Amino acid sequence: MEVVCVGWLNPPAQIWNRNLIERITSQQNPRIKKAIQLHSSRGRQSQRRIIVFGIREVERAIDAGVAFDEVYFADSVLDELVRNFETKTAGKATRLTRLDDKVFEKVTYGDRSDSIVGVAARPATELENMDPVFTGSPDSALVLVLQKIEKPGNLGAIVRTADACGVSAVICADPLTDVFHPNSIRASTGTVFNIPLATGSSNQVQDWLRKNQFQVYTAFLENARDFYQCDLTGKTAIVLGNEAYGLDEQWNRSGFTAVKLPMKGRADSLNVSVTASVMMYEAVRQRNR
Amino acid sequence: MEVVCVGWLNPPAQIWNRNLIERITSQQNPRIKKAIQLHSSRGRQSQRRIIVFGIREVERAIDAGVAFDEVYFADSVLDELVRNFETKTAGKATRLTRLDDKVFEKVTYGDRSDSIVGVAARPATELENMDPVFTGSPDSALVLVLQKIEKPGNLGAIVRTADACGVSAVICADPLTDVFHPNSIRASTGTVFNIPLATGSSNQVQDWLRKNQFQVYTAFLENARDFYQCDLTGKTAIVLGNEAYGLDEQWNRSGFTAVKLPMKGRADSLNVSVTASVMMYEAVRQRNR
Repeated sequence: MEVVCVGWLNPPAQIWNRNLIERITSQQNPRIKKAIQLHSSRGRQSQRRIIVFGIREVERAIDAGVAFDEVYFADSVLDELVRNFETKTAGKATRLTRLDDKVFEKVTYGDRSDSIVGVAARPATELENMDPVFTGSPDSALVLVLQKIEKPGNLGAIVRTADACGVSAVICADPLTDVFHPNSIRASTGTVFNIPLATGSSNQVQDWLRKNQFQVYTAFLENARDFYQCDLTGKTAIVLGNEAYGLDEQWNRSGFTAVKLPMKGRADSLNVSVTASVMMYEAVRQRNR
Repeated sequence: MEVVCVGWLNPPAQIWNRNLIERITSQQNPRIKKAIQLHSSRGRQSQRRIIVFGIREVERAIDAGVAFDEVYFADSVLDELVRNFETKTAGKATRLTRLDDKVFEKVTYGDRSDSIVGVAARPATELENMDPVFTGSPDSALVLVLQKIEKPGNLGAIVRTADACGVSAVICADPLTDVFHPNSIRASTGTVFNIPLATGSSNQVQDWLRKNQFQVYTAFLENARDFYQCDLTGKTAIVLGNEAYGLDEQWNRSGFTAVKLPMKGRADSLNVSVTASVMMYEAVRQRNR
């Protein structure tokens, strides 16, 4: 009898806490159906929602103020982690729900090993709403512009480096991918929520850069100045083009400085993520001197 | 009748040239079977052969002196291209062969859109055979060391940037991937054949670096010096670790300088390919001054 008593005084954590939050066991649940629709760009646009996979990614998004409607947990997730998220989302309209294995498998993306999936309101990315003063560094803002970026993994990798470099904002001109594509969020390790991110047409972006008096450096392979000869300590924008085709000619104009990195060897170009990283870090180097 | 005559005087290029080279139509052909075995690392090791996909990649390998046994062409390939390769391989023991669509599909890799596949002798990568003098730049050699690199795509991307930076050699210590993995060759855009490439254990590589009097900079996140404070103009080795775990502790030793890039933002580390690229380009910058 004593043994049974001890059992009740110290119930296994699993049994105890599993009952704390709601649980969905049906794939036909309308919330589950709506979450699955967010796997596609069309679903994300029409619901004005995004879907975030992974503990680190959801955490960084919450910390950055992204408003989550739902956080779904796999059955394998420890209760301690659920409690952490309860604390993080306390006072917010976020529903925490456990999903049965089969249901979770449907909500997660591809063959990923994530154990948390969140659904959130799509953060605003309108260029006109972005603060051009970048609180604290009005005269030394460093902005990265990516025109017609196509691969979400590249965008995410670039944003991750931009975050490490303390870049003021990343602006996507005429983007060919959803900036909140799951692969972009993943490759950014969630930093896509930490950095001011805006989208607009090339015309809008050029107007914005001129209006806010940025020194604009455009990456071109022809008739371009050695990037290392440029002063990047003022209010600076670095502009890079599409992975395969580079920048559109509309970015080759007076008032902007065409630049390139020195290149030896057989390859005739660099990966856009490499070029972006090297250029941003050169700005960091000049500013730290 | 005149029309027929004109037809004979100017035969369609396709009909004319298709007969110039051999053609394989059976998937059971032993050469085809051996080529397919090269898709796996084990097959490449046991045959001491590599398989190269893509026009640019095969071309760069031939130009770099890689000895091809076979070059296979898809049926869709223009005869002009076949003739180019006949010129390129003239006097060499390279068999050029067209493959029927179904056979080519088997030989090619995954769902790639390549139209040329080559089979070649595996280039030697023994560290002891590598010329440490690096003809022309004995006192300013720049070597990149990658320890336990795991993802062939990362390795290839790094080699591509190393080639653009004019790096003297890339050395893989304790590699966890085949340096000639198809994804490595692909991500390098074939530059993996242009740059001296060696493999060895960490002990061998450290001995080699000491014997050849390199200044060694190891990438660590803790107790590390700002990379931009380092003089990279002499005989320099930059050493980076595994994608997930970084460098092994055996690289944290006296005589070597631990270094890191400055980092702001939320992310606690950078992608290894980004770190490698930024560090190599900083060496280029210092050397071009």
